[in-house]
Amino acid sequence: MTSSVAKQIQVGIVGATGYTGVELLRLLAGHPHVDVRVITSRGEKGLPVAELYPSLRGHVDLSFVEPDNEALGACDVVFFATPHGVAQSMMSDLMKYDVKVIDLSADFRIKDIALWEKWYGQKHGAPQWVGEAVYGLPEVNRAQIAKAKLIAVPGCYPTSVQLGFLPLIEAGLINLNSLIANSASGVSGAGRQAKIDNLFSEMGESFKAYGVAGHRHLPEIEQGLSVLANQKVNLTFVPHLLPLTRGIHSTLYATLTKTSVDLQSVYEARFKNEPFVDVLPAGVFPQTRTVKGANICQLAVVRPQGRDTVVVLSVIDNLTKGAAGQAVQCMNIVRGLPETTGLHHIGLVP
Amino acid sequence: MTSSVAKQIQVGIVGATGYTGVELLRLLAGHPHVDVRVITSRGEKGLPVAELYPSLRGHVDLSFVEPDNEALGACDVVFFATPHGVAQSMMSDLMKYDVKVIDLSADFRIKDIALWEKWYGQKHGAPQWVGEAVYGLPEVNRAQIAKAKLIAVPGCYPTSVQLGFLPLIEAGLINLNSLIANSASGVSGAGRQAKIDNLFSEMGESFKAYGVAGHRHLPEIEQGLSVLANQKVNLTFVPHLLPLTRGIHSTLYATLTKTSVDLQSVYEARFKNEPFVDVLPAGVFPQTRTVKGANICQLAVVRPQGRDTVVVLSVIDNLTKGAAGQAVQCMNIVRGLPETTGLHHIGLVP
Amino acid sequence: MTSSVAKQIQVGIVGATGYTGVELLRLLAGHPHVDVRVITSRGEKGLPVAELYPSLRGHVDLSFVEPDNEALGACDVVFFATPHGVAQSMMSDLMKYDVKVIDLSADFRIKDIALWEKWYGQKHGAPQWVGEAVYGLPEVNRAQIAKAKLIAVPGCYPTSVQLGFLPLIEAGLINLNSLIANSASGVSGAGRQAKIDNLFSEMGESFKAYGVAGHRHLPEIEQGLSVLANQKVNLTFVPHLLPLTRGIHSTLYATLTKTSVDLQSVYEARFKNEPFVDVLPAGVFPQTRTVKGANICQLAVVRPQGRDTVVVLSVIDNLTKGAAGQAVQCMNIVRGLPETTGLHHIGLVP
Amino acid sequence: MTSSVAKQIQVGIVGATGYTGVELLRLLAGHPHVDVRVITSRGEKGLPVAELYPSLRGHVDLSFVEPDNEALGACDVVFFATPHGVAQSMMSDLMKYDVKVIDLSADFRIKDIALWEKWYGQKHGAPQWVGEAVYGLPEVNRAQIAKAKLIAVPGCYPTSVQLGFLPLIEAGLINLNSLIANSASGVSGAGRQAKIDNLFSEMGESFKAYGVAGHRHLPEIEQGLSVLANQKVNLTFVPHLLPLTRGIHSTLYATLTKTSVDLQSVYEARFKNEPFVDVLPAGVFPQTRTVKGANICQLAVVRPQGRDTVVVLSVIDNLTKGAAGQAVQCMNIVRGLPETTGLHHIGLVP
Repeated sequence: MTSSVAKQIQVGIVGATGYTGVELLRLLAGHPHVDVRVITSRGEKGLPVAELYPSLRGHVDLSFVEPDNEALGACDVVFFATPHGVAQSMMSDLMKYDVKVIDLSADFRIKDIALWEKWYGQKHGAPQWVGEAVYGLPEVNRAQIAKAKLIAVPGCYPTSVQLGFLPLIEAGLINLNSLIANSASGVSGAGRQAKIDNLFSEMGESFKAYGVAGHRHLPEIEQGLSVLANQKVNLTFVPHLLPLTRGIHSTLYATLTKTSVDLQSVYEARFKNEPFVDVLPAGVFPQTRTVKGANICQLAVVRPQGRDTVVVLSVIDNLTKGAAGQAVQCMNIVRGLPETTGLHHIGLVP
Repeated sequence: MTSSVAKQIQVGIVGATGYTGVELLRLLAGHPHVDVRVITSRGEKGLPVAELYPSLRGHVDLSFVEPDNEALGACDVVFFATPHGVAQSMMSDLMKYDVKVIDLSADFRIKDIALWEKWYGQKHGAPQWVGEAVYGLPEVNRAQIAKAKLIAVPGCYPTSVQLGFLPLIEAGLINLNSLIANSASGVSGAGRQAKIDNLFSEMGESFKAYGVAGHRHLPEIEQGLSVLANQKVNLTFVPHLLPLTRGIHSTLYATLTKTSVDLQSVYEARFKNEPFVDVLPAGVFPQTRTVKGANICQLAVVRPQGRDTVVVLSVIDNLTKGAAGQAVQCMNIVRGLPETTGLHHIGLVP
Repeated sequence: MTSSVAKQIQVGIVGATGYTGVELLRLLAGHPHVDVRVITSRGEKGLPVAELYPSLRGHVDLSFVEPDNEALGACDVVFFATPHGVAQSMMSDLMKYDVKVIDLSADFRIKDIALWEKWYGQKHGAPQWVGEAVYGLPEVNRAQIAKAKLIAVPGCYPTSVQLGFLPLIEAGLINLNSLIANSASGVSGAGRQAKIDNLFSEMGESFKAYGVAGHRHLPEIEQGLSVLANQKVNLTFVPHLLPLTRGIHSTLYATLTKTSVDLQSVYEARFKNEPFVDVLPAGVFPQTRTVKGANICQLAVVRPQGRDTVVVLSVIDNLTKGAAGQAVQCMNIVRGLPETTGLHHIGLVP
Repeated sequence: MTSSVAKQIQVGIVGATGYTGVELLRLLAGHPHVDVRVITSRGEKGLPVAELYPSLRGHVDLSFVEPDNEALGACDVVFFATPHGVAQSMMSDLMKYDVKVIDLSADFRIKDIALWEKWYGQKHGAPQWVGEAVYGLPEVNRAQIAKAKLIAVPGCYPTSVQLGFLPLIEAGLINLNSLIANSASGVSGAGRQAKIDNLFSEMGESFKAYGVAGHRHLPEIEQGLSVLANQKVNLTFVPHLLPLTRGIHSTLYATLTKTSVDLQSVYEARFKNEPFVDVLPAGVFPQTRTVKGANICQLAVVRPQGRDTVVVLSVIDNLTKGAAGQAVQCMNIVRGLPETTGLHHIGLVP
């Protein structure tokens, strides 16, 4: 974090005690044009941030403060790294200021308010701002993001699944009625909450599916794919929990309606100008460790046995391209910076 | 291992230095009616078995010896826990003796010899014994196993996938042309070989697909499913590697052709008399740790969103129900013992 | 669990929802002379045990009930697998019955009541029973355990440290003023409680010391070593947390006062009749995985560079020889069974 | 990696296929004043570096070439990330050029050639250059490093142990005859070699000591501590292997000869100007994950129970401050750059 000068982007963060929050701080602390001014947390008010996360010692000197609209409104950009519901409750007040809001929570991702309320089991707290929100997937919405006042950063699973299916849908190559996304996530996706289910002794040396009957990311993914397809898309989405901390791997299945196309070329062409989507050479498959801590999605496309089922493999770090990195990417866009500014991290291998 | 008395089964093991071998020894050492007499290994000849695996100190007092047909032929049962090719090379000599052979390798699983040769990249060394071999999946082949002289124990992935699809296929409920098996295995499935790919620093904190274009277990699974269906079945099979040692989780997808059926009841009815297949209550999903070290397959069946895609979750310990435990189960059957003898192990949780 | 016949030991368990409890159930369910009759839990009253731990499906058919002195008093043996304080609160009532109590908690381990109250930060609830309690380390107290009505099973760290130092102290070979125990435990030692510190995302891929200034097992270990030495012993004890679930490894350091002794022989002689302590051959070092799920302590003794510092390596499974297994061993002794009954489990390798 | 301009440091790397090599590339690719020109590997000649390590796609565009003295000699700085013996064999030829050599291997760390030959079991290949070599621990040797032509970067264990003991020895507070270093390392310290011992299935969910009778880092540490103490220091060093990839944690023990000193202040004073040594606040203990990927050593000092044994906890990332990061730190010093240039990475948490 460089000292505050006129050109620096003044940043506030609401709720940075969780894993998405500390990842955001890691990225922003190394961003050459950012000055983090305010970090709020009701629960940890007064605690130096680096005491909660000793990895930030010497990099972040602030303490948590209580949320304060004026202090946040004085920033250029405010990030929400909060559970759902919080951003909704503060949005009307914050929107009065000349500030860009980048929300990493689920509050403004889904356009259909009844659908949101059904999946999240509560009344939407700020339906009037849903129309304003731009879905922050730069590979699809770059131009709208640049002009947005409120950006809803996609969920981790939705990022990996949408980027994976995107070329097939845009090119009209698959049956849209029976897509399958078999995804697996590291445990950090479950957040930093004291739950028995997420204990080391529960998750270590084990693997399981969860939310098979219905996961909150399903309507978000179906909405995104339907926009791409310009028609209703049906997805079977089965998330799993991996005994590792960071990383999402989605294995996507679809039935090809055209089989004469060179899928590798379709993917390479679609993403050749995308700085954060990397189509691997034919025959190479991604692994989650390669993208650990990096804002990158690596993809492979395969047609096993030359049959008409296409398989796409898509990996991201759920905390980086799946959350905080994508949020910073959106900030760069909305502030007119080169999109890769401060996002050159290389995956930590091994 | 109890001392040798008249009724004890005299057992020989060919190639017990690998993970399947040590698991077999763990199970046989605790089996009340088994006396292990011979354990062979060319490479480790002369080495006490418990020196290689200190967990066996006090339980297995034998040393590895060179393979010797006479000593093996004097046994009641000989297990092969060898890489493919070895059992083929010794089978004709061994079949001269009055001995039951239980082969844990891939040598006699596939009935179509040309298909075997294509996937394993070598000439079959004992095609004349393929017809003799019974595929050792008790839940399908119990009666034939009881009378077999040569049993080909299924692979780990094939066990989890076949048991998972079995009720759907037998009941004629799904489209057989586009099955999908998305499987994930612990690293022990790759064996105890000095390969960079299987190092802790390569596999830890990571997840990846492999063999997407074609894995050797694909033809074995398709053969098994086709027998069940009495017609050709097409499967897309994508295996993945988990950062854990033991466990396989298969997530299976199929398109229902009949949707009026209570799938939970179909599964419970099919397996209600099976001691080693456990259909979980509706809404409960299996996890690999639950079956760690136990000879059990736990299953769940789900129909997400009430659509026409059915999802089956199937877990086993790849070394137990996926290899050594199933082999002992076959031995019990072929020797007329209660099928569960010596196989009461409870999953090691946590 | 076999059906109840006259000779079977009727067993009750207080508080079996934690990791020590499920391990106790795993061992008792396979014990040939035990019939578990009562499993209590205030919080989970009414819940089938196998619903909480699906690994017990088909092995344990009971549901949790509220603690009830009469039902417990009707048992032959009652185990406490509870947090400290609980056994103290129930002891006076239970002692009225003809029942043996085996307490896996810390309630009756420390003889000096003031010392207990200092380290556990609360008033002792049953000081009158402390004198009655026998410290359940069979390798030291076998005869007293056989006659005891109340057995205080040692803690996990104390078991590994005391067994490791035992031969050196009994033989009078070391300076007793400056012992060091550098121990490392798997996360299951921290129990099944919803704490952020024990989340997978906090403990995975990390290692740390804790309780360096003082851990509750310090006074217990010093008490045990002082009894062995018949004089005050000073120990520096530094526990650490490993990113694995089961296992304790203690690396012990002491200054030799006699250097002409063959330490390997001293260790082998001391433990040659102990069924659950295994001194490895010279030059072989123990690893925690070897004893996973087995009721065994493996030891090595080394004198690096021939200097006068001796190093002892001691491993156990914290849930087995460090808790539930040792408790069952005590039960066998107190009931006059062969000490190894129901405890033949082999370490789950790999 | 920026394009080559006049001021950029031209860098060559010998042997970058291992874990130290890929970490060096990660750091150098992000270093603002470095231009990597040559990366050699006999075994992987011709292979694009980013094909071996897909995390470097888009960051490193070179392919491995055969070692070539002329190409290396044309660089400003040459790093060796090779097994021991290689740098020795090339040193005489390379020293003819105007190049700084930074050797990450053990070839020039030990001043006593007979001692080196005893521990490494081979004849030293370049004894004439040992006197020239400066031991690259900046916190001790900064001035000499600045003037060195050949820098021997310390081993990973030696870095953590020496930085931990340094203030105690410099201040003359401890008995130098009986130091203890109980260290634990992630598996990446064992390198990227195809060995059964380092397989995931061997190392996962396990912990063990190794090299207890004598590890090659012992003479290196004793040499370093003896230089600090200006007298012979005796250390008992017991390394252990952790089931994680990156991180070293050393738990150090010594007997205080002066107990009236405020140890916390001694540590804070000694390191207050060191950018890469961080003394934690009293009562806070380090964990390895905090420094993952960061060039930092975090320390705590404790005196348990107020007795005369002092305990120091020292953590580093074995690949960063324990190898590649320290090497880059040395490069910055020898080239006159601010020591922290290109080394601002924050530990990847969680």
